[in-house]
Amino acid sequence: MIKPRTPPGIMELLPREQIAFQRMLDVIRRNYERFGFLPVETPVFELSEVLLTKSGGETERQVYFVQSTGALANAAADAEAGKGDGGPPELALRFDLTVPLARYVAEHEHELSFPFRRYQMQRVYRGERAQRGRFREFYQCDIDVIGKDTLNIRYDAEVLAVIHAVFSELGIGAFRVHLNNRKLMRGFFQAQGVTDPQQQALVLREVDKLDKRGADYVRDTLAGPDFGLPAAAVERILAFVAVRSQSHDDALARIDAALAQAGADAGEALRAGAAELREVLGLVKALGVPESAYCLNFSIARGLDYYTGTVYETQLVEHPEIGSICSGGRYEDLASHYTKSRLPGVGISIGLTRLFWQLREAGLIAGIAESSVQAMVALMDEARLDQALDIARHLRAGGINTEVQMEARKVGKQFQYAARAGIRFVVLAGEDELARGVVAVKDLAREQQFEVSREELAGTLRVELEQARALAGR
Amino acid sequence: MIKPRTPPGIMELLPREQIAFQRMLDVIRRNYERFGFLPVETPVFELSEVLLTKSGGETERQVYFVQSTGALANAAADAEAGKGDGGPPELALRFDLTVPLARYVAEHEHELSFPFRRYQMQRVYRGERAQRGRFREFYQCDIDVIGKDTLNIRYDAEVLAVIHAVFSELGIGAFRVHLNNRKLMRGFFQAQGVTDPQQQALVLREVDKLDKRGADYVRDTLAGPDFGLPAAAVERILAFVAVRSQSHDDALARIDAALAQAGADAGEALRAGAAELREVLGLVKALGVPESAYCLNFSIARGLDYYTGTVYETQLVEHPEIGSICSGGRYEDLASHYTKSRLPGVGISIGLTRLFWQLREAGLIAGIAESSVQAMVALMDEARLDQALDIARHLRAGGINTEVQMEARKVGKQFQYAARAGIRFVVLAGEDELARGVVAVKDLAREQQFEVSREELAGTLRVELEQARALAGR
Repeated sequence: MIKPRTPPGIMELLPREQIAFQRMLDVIRRNYERFGFLPVETPVFELSEVLLTKSGGETERQVYFVQSTGALANAAADAEAGKGDGGPPELALRFDLTVPLARYVAEHEHELSFPFRRYQMQRVYRGERAQRGRFREFYQCDIDVIGKDTLNIRYDAEVLAVIHAVFSELGIGAFRVHLNNRKLMRGFFQAQGVTDPQQQALVLREVDKLDKRGADYVRDTLAGPDFGLPAAAVERILAFVAVRSQSHDDALARIDAALAQAGADAGEALRAGAAELREVLGLVKALGVPESAYCLNFSIARGLDYYTGTVYETQLVEHPEIGSICSGGRYEDLASHYTKSRLPGVGISIGLTRLFWQLREAGLIAGIAESSVQAMVALMDEARLDQALDIARHLRAGGINTEVQMEARKVGKQFQYAARAGIRFVVLAGEDELARGVVAVKDLAREQQFEVSREELAGTLRVELEQARALAGR
Repeated sequence: MIKPRTPPGIMELLPREQIAFQRMLDVIRRNYERFGFLPVETPVFELSEVLLTKSGGETERQVYFVQSTGALANAAADAEAGKGDGGPPELALRFDLTVPLARYVAEHEHELSFPFRRYQMQRVYRGERAQRGRFREFYQCDIDVIGKDTLNIRYDAEVLAVIHAVFSELGIGAFRVHLNNRKLMRGFFQAQGVTDPQQQALVLREVDKLDKRGADYVRDTLAGPDFGLPAAAVERILAFVAVRSQSHDDALARIDAALAQAGADAGEALRAGAAELREVLGLVKALGVPESAYCLNFSIARGLDYYTGTVYETQLVEHPEIGSICSGGRYEDLASHYTKSRLPGVGISIGLTRLFWQLREAGLIAGIAESSVQAMVALMDEARLDQALDIARHLRAGGINTEVQMEARKVGKQFQYAARAGIRFVVLAGEDELARGVVAVKDLAREQQFEVSREELAGTLRVELEQARALAGR
């Protein structure tokens, strides 16, 4: 007898949890499609040579390698024969959706229309050290717009509108998209005399310690021997990274202020970044995103070696401790390892497995949903099985997800089962009801019972379910 | 530069193919839910010890093993140090959804209600030899009903009704579920004097050669030295496996005939199998499945060591050469490796990746769908971008999947793009239209153009799209 268990670092759900999770996936998919993004799925494994384009990167990324029984036997035989290291296994599990997207776009370049707008919602794999809230298998829900040669800055605004649409419909509380621009950031640091990109990165790393170590520590470090920045520059840097705009107009004013402060020192990067941010803000407004849902945050940097323009992070207003729930940005070139074509893009990612776990831990979602089964046809007498099946058939034809009790049991037991399973309606048809062409319906949500003709049953339940959906804002 | 490519044996789709595939997945999911099945997802990898419960089974199943960078390095170090074979890697990719289901049900036994009805639609992995139409990664779409200790035969009828609902809505042509019962089959062979189960399997293997080698060859083999069956028994076997019922009543008559023929030799298995088949047929009718959609086929055996009662195969009436498109049956005990509880079940599986490929090869589906993007807002003048975004916002709020052209281009180019992308409606708002509060809509499906007020735009398109859906029978 083998103990049934999953490997560590896996989130496996019970059915009603799975339904809650699936509803979140559905909301995300619906909104991605609403904005015109097209579905893509890629295989769970890629050729290692294709996936791991940077040498030495495997360890960082904690990749899972894949070998068939045959490949494993061959490798063992080679090792035994002293043929030594045949290199890493041929296949590896994807660790994100970005590298597979790059491979996909480069491979199918001539069959796609650009700008190419794709969404992808699949699981990815990382051999993380097992710890609470860290998953080795998790869903990523990504969108990207990929241009050929160029990609208009306007898409950066549209992506922000998608974030807004998704999290509005998910209904997990007030949220705000924090917006920044890497060019503006780079230009600002240049104006402060920090011109080397690596030095900028080191300064930002110190700035990141503000919350933990306090302003004095950071001020002393930046002014100290390691950095040697003038005190005035340090103050300007600390003021800059503290910027959080309070409204749309305030955001525009903050951009103007950054430019004004740099004055004659304002270089091309700062001007370009400011112009991009202004355009993005203007279009975000035109797209109808309310100004409470976005702000400038000049401390947001994201992956320094990857993003080159707009960057986004999204926070729950009441729960900043959860961190960013949706991040992304603009990059220069998606697939330089695979094609000579220049493919700039902008995209975001939602790590849904972790988000679901965090929301549940924080008590922001119940973590279980009503059943996907909407009605249960009870069976009180074996002799009436055929009628029960017929009622179920009509309910299903009318669009109601219906389970039928296949064996007669005490009616109390059947109600208990339905309540525990999260099924809203229990349909009963005793001899008396059948004779009158009606059924009795018990609504477990409202704790009411009513009678309805068999012809009107499905329609009645459909109306009730649609009302509930409308009330829940779904 | 690395050549972007997928590993062999993978089916990767372009976006409009992916949409067509996704629609099939959606139909299957909708029907599984309609019949009250609950969603389950399991991790792509399981502990090898848990997954590979039968020793020596790995090779048969062509399993893919999984190792993190760290585990791989450890194994290499062990090998170098002469510590030899540490056994197979700790993790392996699932090769079907049945073993993970067994593990899931055994692991969560006390948190589930029985009979437990689950659906699962995920990809599985087999290290098959690469060849046309064989996939190493493919979708399985499964349902199972699992009982505790016992499971009423009635569920076997319901599962057949699910097959009928799924393939009716998929709309890939006339199909028929071929039904048999392993007990009846076993009982029939016993009555012919073939009592040993292994001998029965060998006889069935010969019978399977009927199409290829002809009746004379099979007749000679069964009557010859290897089997030594009396000529009369051989004739009865050949007549039995040729049975295909022509109607509901004919099916019942065929069961009676099998019993009558055995006469006094009819043992318990034959009687039990006949009774089960009769009950399943009766309930299938009560569930409203038309009799053209099912038949008895006494040659269907399926996995001889696994199924114990009802077995199903599903064939396209006009394309029997495609083989079974949905198979399954009744089994005695799901999870004997993991739990002492007896868990009988009945289930089916649709291998959607292969089915999609076969249907496309046979020309039975187009293999590409209309875009999931339903409307495109054209942009003819940069100055009207804000209005275009506003129109898009209203369309999206009204439930229309909408893409907006972010850069002004020649209108001809934009129509060309929409047509190529499979987008049905192109919305145009020039100065004149904007002044009058209307937009022009070009319907690329009907090749018509009309004007509509901006307020009524989304509603009008919704009606058009719903009509198209209704006409397509979706």
